[in-house]
Amino acid sequence: MWPTTLIELCRIEHPIVLAPLAGGPGTPELAAAVCEAGGLGSLGGGYLEPSALRAEIRKLRALTRRPFLVNLFAHAPSKAPFASSEETARAQAFVAPFRAEVGLSKAPAGFAPPSFREQLAIVLDESVPVFSVTSGALDREDVQALRRQGTVVFGTATTLCEASVLAESGVQAVVVQSSEAGGHRATFTAPAEKALVGMMALLPRVADAVKIPLVAAGAIMDGRGIAAALALGAHGVQLGTAFLACPESGASPAYKAAVLAARGEGDPTVLTSAFSGRLARALSNRFSEAAAGGPVLPYPQQHGLTAEMRQAAARAGRADLLSLWAGQAVGLARSLPAGELIRELVRETRATIGRLHGQSP
Amino acid sequence: MWPTTLIELCRIEHPIVLAPLAGGPGTPELAAAVCEAGGLGSLGGGYLEPSALRAEIRKLRALTRRPFLVNLFAHAPSKAPFASSEETARAQAFVAPFRAEVGLSKAPAGFAPPSFREQLAIVLDESVPVFSVTSGALDREDVQALRRQGTVVFGTATTLCEASVLAESGVQAVVVQSSEAGGHRATFTAPAEKALVGMMALLPRVADAVKIPLVAAGAIMDGRGIAAALALGAHGVQLGTAFLACPESGASPAYKAAVLAARGEGDPTVLTSAFSGRLARALSNRFSEAAAGGPVLPYPQQHGLTAEMRQAAARAGRADLLSLWAGQAVGLARSLPAGELIRELVRETRATIGRLHGQSP
Repeated sequence: MWPTTLIELCRIEHPIVLAPLAGGPGTPELAAAVCEAGGLGSLGGGYLEPSALRAEIRKLRALTRRPFLVNLFAHAPSKAPFASSEETARAQAFVAPFRAEVGLSKAPAGFAPPSFREQLAIVLDESVPVFSVTSGALDREDVQALRRQGTVVFGTATTLCEASVLAESGVQAVVVQSSEAGGHRATFTAPAEKALVGMMALLPRVADAVKIPLVAAGAIMDGRGIAAALALGAHGVQLGTAFLACPESGASPAYKAAVLAARGEGDPTVLTSAFSGRLARALSNRFSEAAAGGPVLPYPQQHGLTAEMRQAAARAGRADLLSLWAGQAVGLARSLPAGELIRELVRETRATIGRLHGQSP
Repeated sequence: MWPTTLIELCRIEHPIVLAPLAGGPGTPELAAAVCEAGGLGSLGGGYLEPSALRAEIRKLRALTRRPFLVNLFAHAPSKAPFASSEETARAQAFVAPFRAEVGLSKAPAGFAPPSFREQLAIVLDESVPVFSVTSGALDREDVQALRRQGTVVFGTATTLCEASVLAESGVQAVVVQSSEAGGHRATFTAPAEKALVGMMALLPRVADAVKIPLVAAGAIMDGRGIAAALALGAHGVQLGTAFLACPESGASPAYKAAVLAARGEGDPTVLTSAFSGRLARALSNRFSEAAAGGPVLPYPQQHGLTAEMRQAAARAGRADLLSLWAGQAVGLARSLPAGELIRELVRETRATIGRLHGQSP
């Protein structure tokens, strides 16, 4: 039987969480398929205006009656560093020719992040079953307000320090994001470049110090990874890249094709802030390579600078200008339907643990 | 019972390999203690002149009759990039004040790496039980010559590509070095900065493609890590940082103290080439911080530039100028005698697998 803590806390069958794939790949359909198969489906609400967030939650609720998770970014835009007008002009000039390639000639529309307070009000108002926060910690009062109405609260940590801060804030579980993980680094107490700790090192250290359930996130793609995470001290796992190529995923066809083609013999991924202004792990492509060392604005300006380009590239089927978020184990990605993938993961975990049992000293 | 492949291949009791801790920490006494406890002790011969290598092997043979491993660096110094005299002068000027702090005022003595061919001749002549190579692959002829006289041959890989190259060369096992690992990166087919793959991602990918025994190396410090490595597809494990603080280790007292003090809440390690000219993971200290972005010569010049400084710093008990090689899980280091540590690792592995067996879905 699975470790009981996380499955009892969230009232799920399998301690397998769908990572909140904000910005497109994470659809209500994908979340519902994971929920219906006994996992914890999720919605990445970070980029959604409050009304759109509410609509997604309601769409998911129409597809499943099972518990699900909603994730938001806690980073306050007001804390973002300020870019001078010269820096902005340089970054715009850098992106302009790439934008022109996909037919964008006017100045970028820009991006104003949704209000976190308003997003959180929706989460409270909708009585979301499980809520997780990345790139920051909530105030104790917010955590208590969520817990009072029955919402289970997760935080996301990339270091032992962050896991301790989150536990102090009253969260009931910590997602431990290792250096292998795809997408944005959730780091909030250090420069993201200095918080790149592999799962083998990070998880046991956090497990020794933080006595609430831990959810391992980073390079988990099959039952071998799930068994390894449990061995290291996790009570559950969170998988994102593993679900990108599922038919229910909202990743564009070009993105899915790039994920399934990433069978390279080295590390197919790179850490880059070229797409959003925040460090993230993605498949290396022409834009990330061209932008290495180039002018990059802080979040949210850089996100606004490249958002239309990425949308147009997705429509045009061009992976070379897309933000192809992916973890280091992307080479193990499969294109199974999400429910089938969950069942396969459970079977593989059982098989791996059975094998290990025969290999015990 | 342990996976049988590696233990039968090397005629050992436990598939736990002491990492070859070249340059001081790896003593015949430490290797012998690991061998006597049923693991595979090792000597890191990379920096040793042939006569010193032979003496170390004989010293180890006087301490144990069990199989052991000798490791050499395969990187040919002739392939190293050339530093101009201006670059050399800049790097010397950078190191000079640090050298002066520990009483060194003359020009650095420099360092001429031992001849790899001559080192290999000693390994052949001494009929070493197990030989491993890092930072390169042997020619097929060398591998066959070793195997003909009964030496088991390991290679070291940091990517799937390198594991395939090594398997092609005829080695009988591959040490899979993940990004978490301490000490020098063994990368030889790519820039080391582009071959930093976490264990969770690297090991299953290599296991799927390379059908010889794999030895996981990186952030393995206790039975949780050993069980996780077995789950991911390893047949054995190699631990270095875990043995640094053992009484039999030749690490200087300042180095041991720094290892045991590294209980920091973020990542206490950094990737730096400031000590040797080759990328390596070490505890961050004053010298690595000062040298970040500064002038660094290629190996072996940079090694020669800093070697006396490091030796003098060790004698003076100053960790701030030492190369404190350590993996990302250094915070889990213990100071047990090596044999006791081996026995503890076996007990912990059994306990972890027993726990997992109760957590199977």
